Amino acid sequence: MQQTLIIQEQLKIFEQYLEKSVVSEDPLISSTALHILKAGGKRVRPSFAIAAARVNGCEIEKLLPLMAALELIHTSSLIHDDVIDGSDTRRKMPTINALYGNKTAVYIGDFIVGRSFQVISYYKDLRILDSFNKTVLEMCRGELRQLADAYRIGQNIRDYFYRIQRKTALLFATSCECGACVSGASDEQIGILRRYGYYLGMAFQITDDILDMVSEESVLGKPVGSDLRQGNLSLPVIYSLQNSYWKEKLGQFILNSKEDPAEIEKIIAMVNQAGGLDYAEEIAERFIKKAMLEIDKLPESDAVNVLKGVASHLAKRKY
Amino acid sequence: MQQTLIIQEQLKIFEQYLEKSVVSEDPLISSTALHILKAGGKRVRPSFAIAAARVNGCEIEKLLPLMAALELIHTSSLIHDDVIDGSDTRRKMPTINALYGNKTAVYIGDFIVGRSFQVISYYKDLRILDSFNKTVLEMCRGELRQLADAYRIGQNIRDYFYRIQRKTALLFATSCECGACVSGASDEQIGILRRYGYYLGMAFQITDDILDMVSEESVLGKPVGSDLRQGNLSLPVIYSLQNSYWKEKLGQFILNSKEDPAEIEKIIAMVNQAGGLDYAEEIAERFIKKAMLEIDKLPESDAVNVLKGVASHLAKRKY
Repeated sequence: MQQTLIIQEQLKIFEQYLEKSVVSEDPLISSTALHILKAGGKRVRPSFAIAAARVNGCEIEKLLPLMAALELIHTSSLIHDDVIDGSDTRRKMPTINALYGNKTAVYIGDFIVGRSFQVISYYKDLRILDSFNKTVLEMCRGELRQLADAYRIGQNIRDYFYRIQRKTALLFATSCECGACVSGASDEQIGILRRYGYYLGMAFQITDDILDMVSEESVLGKPVGSDLRQGNLSLPVIYSLQNSYWKEKLGQFILNSKEDPAEIEKIIAMVNQAGGLDYAEEIAERFIKKAMLEIDKLPESDAVNVLKGVASHLAKRKY
Repeated sequence: MQQTLIIQEQLKIFEQYLEKSVVSEDPLISSTALHILKAGGKRVRPSFAIAAARVNGCEIEKLLPLMAALELIHTSSLIHDDVIDGSDTRRKMPTINALYGNKTAVYIGDFIVGRSFQVISYYKDLRILDSFNKTVLEMCRGELRQLADAYRIGQNIRDYFYRIQRKTALLFATSCECGACVSGASDEQIGILRRYGYYLGMAFQITDDILDMVSEESVLGKPVGSDLRQGNLSLPVIYSLQNSYWKEKLGQFILNSKEDPAEIEKIIAMVNQAGGLDYAEEIAERFIKKAMLEIDKLPESDAVNVLKGVASHLAKRKY
């Protein structure tokens, strides 16, 4: 696939730009921010921005600030999440709070938020600024709702969708929307690509939440069942709490389990037996199909095929 | 003073606008953000924006988004500071972290940062966006430096200036600069007003740091010597560490005192005796004079007299 090779090359160029974007005269900031950026990550959001922009043809240089802003805002949310969750490792590396303490981590997160706004303002484009800014606000709302919903056994699937829309899908939507904007796409194209990003973002988060229950610690880079340990009830769990024969018992187990690995394992087994994991997979696939339907509205091209490839890859991902 | 009465009236209009600016569909966000905004505060930064804008004549409606952005970014920094410092009260009211926990407070702070960027983008003016954004980044750098400098007995006055510039003075400078921009001031006027704000911001913070040592808990709304309790060495202390006859002893006392009120009192007495408080007052007055010299470059008018009045008021403030 020539096209995906090009994107990989472009991501290498991006990597250098991203690192430069956080360098500050302050060595503490530079080294801390570089630590988390160099720890890697899949650069999913910048890749979506490239893929969406390529539909209309777009030079990488024009996209770099957008890509950096997307990765920075994502990174800052991870930094604050790690403080909130008291996580010691991420991507198999020590977190900023583990290395430098919570206080430094909160302010480094704030610094990176500020930098992301600075980088995105390069475009002087109100649609881009507005989409980015609204998404940042919705991400906070999603995180706040997640805190409020922790261990709330009575919640329903709409609560879950509310959260993952904000935590994940809107930033995917913004990545594609703004990538398309930068490439000079038409309003119709921008709308299609935004919805494509949104649906795939939903599928991505649902898959993430399934993997959190069925993958292995060595692959995840964090313990299996992290969500359950934090009382974060994901789609398979909510489905099972509503449909399992032992729903009352499951609820009690979740409320009492907290951090015990053996209990977490038992809960995952119950969720699996209740069909929660299968159900969540089905829903993820439905979102992928919706994304595909959007893409089908665009005239066929190599770039459009890449977008389809990304969607079908997402359907099968195991990490 | 007709002019200051007008400003007071305008601040009342602003108060309503400010409250509306944080309302969200999410009741938790609205109530939390309103809680901290309604707890008050002196609205110093918005007042500076009005005062600077009036030099050129400017309707309040045009200034409201700027004023809100300034107060919001200041508020968000207070929210994160309270998490960092573990403070339970501010302005005699419980803090957000005390009421809702650290996790909620971090994300509410993030939300308010995002909102401030949204509000300021109203102007579509790159000079305003740029000044605001740079200041937000420098504020983070100031906070990070403050963490790194805590209990660092060997620090010098330049370290202190580095911190208060970023923690306080730059946002004052931005308030005046952007107020002037919105009013359509000339580049020369904007420069004068920016420097005026900067110098007064320096004086304001030095005075705050003096009051933290000499005022009373009932006036401060927090215990006397809060800075010392957190190892935050302010100008009077740094001066005394360099000039007191008992400098070694003073350093040891600071390192060992930590949270003990009797020890804190002893340290303040030593700083006073060493002339640290007098020295800091002198430096604050010097900054006020510099601000006055800037203002003298503007042709006399009622609005300019208000700016002079603000400066001389700041020189005498006791709270």
